[in-house]
Amino acid sequence: MPETSVLSHIDHSLDGSLERLFGLLRIPSVSTDPAYAAECQKAAEWLVADLQGLGFDASVRPTAGRPMVVGHYNDAGGANTPRVLFYGHYDVQPPDPLEKWSSGPFEPQRVKRADGSEQIVGRGAADDKGQLMTFIEAVRAWIAVHGRLPVNVTILLEGEEETGSPSLLPFLQANGDELKADVALVCDTNMWDSETPAISTRLRGLMMDEVTITGPSIDLHSGLYGGAARNPIRVLTKILASLHDDDGRVTVPGFYEGVDELPAAIAEQWSALSFSAEDFLGEVGLKIPAGESGRNVLEQLWSRPTCDVNGIWGGYTAAGSKTVIPSKASAKVSFRLVSKQDPLKIRDAFRDFVRAQLPADCTAEFIGYGASRAIEISTDNPYLTKAAAALKQEFGRAPVMMGCGGSIPIVGAFRQMLGMDSLLIGFGQSSDRIHSPNEKYDLSSFHHGMRSWARILGALRA
Amino acid sequence: MPETSVLSHIDHSLDGSLERLFGLLRIPSVSTDPAYAAECQKAAEWLVADLQGLGFDASVRPTAGRPMVVGHYNDAGGANTPRVLFYGHYDVQPPDPLEKWSSGPFEPQRVKRADGSEQIVGRGAADDKGQLMTFIEAVRAWIAVHGRLPVNVTILLEGEEETGSPSLLPFLQANGDELKADVALVCDTNMWDSETPAISTRLRGLMMDEVTITGPSIDLHSGLYGGAARNPIRVLTKILASLHDDDGRVTVPGFYEGVDELPAAIAEQWSALSFSAEDFLGEVGLKIPAGESGRNVLEQLWSRPTCDVNGIWGGYTAAGSKTVIPSKASAKVSFRLVSKQDPLKIRDAFRDFVRAQLPADCTAEFIGYGASRAIEISTDNPYLTKAAAALKQEFGRAPVMMGCGGSIPIVGAFRQMLGMDSLLIGFGQSSDRIHSPNEKYDLSSFHHGMRSWARILGALRA
Repeated sequence: MPETSVLSHIDHSLDGSLERLFGLLRIPSVSTDPAYAAECQKAAEWLVADLQGLGFDASVRPTAGRPMVVGHYNDAGGANTPRVLFYGHYDVQPPDPLEKWSSGPFEPQRVKRADGSEQIVGRGAADDKGQLMTFIEAVRAWIAVHGRLPVNVTILLEGEEETGSPSLLPFLQANGDELKADVALVCDTNMWDSETPAISTRLRGLMMDEVTITGPSIDLHSGLYGGAARNPIRVLTKILASLHDDDGRVTVPGFYEGVDELPAAIAEQWSALSFSAEDFLGEVGLKIPAGESGRNVLEQLWSRPTCDVNGIWGGYTAAGSKTVIPSKASAKVSFRLVSKQDPLKIRDAFRDFVRAQLPADCTAEFIGYGASRAIEISTDNPYLTKAAAALKQEFGRAPVMMGCGGSIPIVGAFRQMLGMDSLLIGFGQSSDRIHSPNEKYDLSSFHHGMRSWARILGALRA
Repeated sequence: MPETSVLSHIDHSLDGSLERLFGLLRIPSVSTDPAYAAECQKAAEWLVADLQGLGFDASVRPTAGRPMVVGHYNDAGGANTPRVLFYGHYDVQPPDPLEKWSSGPFEPQRVKRADGSEQIVGRGAADDKGQLMTFIEAVRAWIAVHGRLPVNVTILLEGEEETGSPSLLPFLQANGDELKADVALVCDTNMWDSETPAISTRLRGLMMDEVTITGPSIDLHSGLYGGAARNPIRVLTKILASLHDDDGRVTVPGFYEGVDELPAAIAEQWSALSFSAEDFLGEVGLKIPAGESGRNVLEQLWSRPTCDVNGIWGGYTAAGSKTVIPSKASAKVSFRLVSKQDPLKIRDAFRDFVRAQLPADCTAEFIGYGASRAIEISTDNPYLTKAAAALKQEFGRAPVMMGCGGSIPIVGAFRQMLGMDSLLIGFGQSSDRIHSPNEKYDLSSFHHGMRSWARILGALRA
């Protein structure tokens, strides 16, 4: 079964593919805010209906949080035909700040650039609805042209990736036999650049925690109490400021336990890449690498752990002034992890670090969010080799074996619980503004993505 | 004209006095939030109508911000009858957080305590509507009983006290001759305790500033950029944490210029006061004085300058987690000033302090709010002596000559622009929760307040 006819089918049915993607993008499936739970359910049902239409045995699978979508295609042929498990997520980040969007976050637009190239603008266009649809559309084309797929396929789409995938492990635990495959395909990463494909072989882990410091039992007048009363904002800012030393290293005791130095071979490969820290930072209005001193930017992003404050609030934050000493102050803090760092040990160490700096008349409460380990994929993996060859055919150049600063908890779970490696192949770009206003996905990413998966499915045949 | 009949008139018409106060408390005249501008206008008109009913030549006087209320009473008698200028403010603090109020902030309640004593609960009950009405009700009683007042009275009520009184100086400049009097009476301070009156002879100044730090030009994904991209929340918390040294002293260069040590005599007087730092802090859930080490709590509150963060915000602050590095982070910072500290010099020094710590790829923007100097009233002032005697008659004990950590900009303005001293006589209590949910004013404060002003008006006769 040659790919060529499948590829031309993809080229000729681009409008239909976009129409389906836009339908999915119009569903505001924000996972972190309970107000959008029904929309997540709606997105899951939309996907199940589409997969059933392709002949998949597909269903919406409830969890303690947002539902999973699972679909199986079993008619690829002989007993030794391999099975791949495709993973993506249909949930998206909150769209705020809304006023910074040039069009509605859930009213996707097809926007033409000056150079004639086009992009798809909307929340989830790149992360991850646009990416997961590249695979489903490739599957659709194979079935349309050849009546069946070259390999058996199971599709697993979750709705909690943006909140640390709390329901994922329980679901894999309960459905391991059903989901097991020869290799997993994950489409939630970037290309090296707009012309060069990439396979991400390193992913950072993540631990997210929220801390609330309470000082006075009520808000106080800063004139009548200022000077004598403890201000929880001051306590919080002092603790947060102490999380890094002057070299940009995290000061939480034991934080660097299990952090490996980058192997010389990979360090060489990376320094050979055409990467301009100036351009990378300049694109977002920055110029000075802010991470650990003595590390280049690719290391800071791909092989070094970090700590960031993702949100902070306390006291009076509306227009004008209010002379108040608030009762509480809060912050959301996250840690990016590498190598063998243990997220739960680091959560405990962070909380101890905060408590150790609390004045005796303040208290700290914590809310734990997702926690996942960093992972690495071996470059000897035979499926990786086949996929790399297919990508080279599509793009005319070999994929870069890159790292990724982001976290995809599923990959660690697949290895630990299903004994599967994952091929991290995505078509996003660093300019996609994921998690930000005006998120976009290049039309070329979407088109190359569909064609690439069509080739890879063919290449993965036994 | 003896006071006795005036006092008994006050005692017998308490319900009417409360009815009028509740009418004023029902108007949500929040000055800091533009959304309430019309309510401020309404409060001003309500007061003018009441004063006109008492025979005052009263009117609403527009300003660039919230309007002033000015009323004159000129029929007290002989040419050498003194004139007093009474000052209060009809604006109130925002009621947030609303969910912490046991009844609507603008639905005043009369609440009986277990011990039978009563309190008036509502935003502005103590700060400052309840206090200003004690004077107007005393005036009403004098006129009702004797047909006229013992001294000439000008009443000036502003609507921007809670936002640093931006329109006050221009208004005094434009209307100095009209407002000039022999002495000013200001009712916006506390008693020493529920049985002991007080005259505040020291007030701290105030400088309020808002800072916004901008790092990346857009919000960034903390995985894809974390480690290399500057986080403005981290920049802001580091700067705020550096505002104090380990002894609780403010580190802004030049901040302590013009700060006088407390005169030994006053230090003695204060240490003779029955004051329990433990109770004062314990009342609001604290136990450790948080100010400059080596200073007792009354010094920290009354004679030492401070810096506090009144509000902070940046990044994702809603429910759940969001792995974002925000573009901006902001804080509202205020400084309480003493002695000869110059608010505008300190504003410049603070802004330089912030800029000096900015990484080269971050910017800082500032919004200046109110700025006022600290002031002191001489205890030799003859009007002060007369008022002190009247208070002693009412309470059966001499008033404490205390300090006040809060700021009442008008007092400095009266001295500088109208050459007038001010008598700071108020009937609030530290338990009144001003600026906080469930703000209250004891019925006994309201009642004693009216009676005290009736006595003071009599005592100030030439």
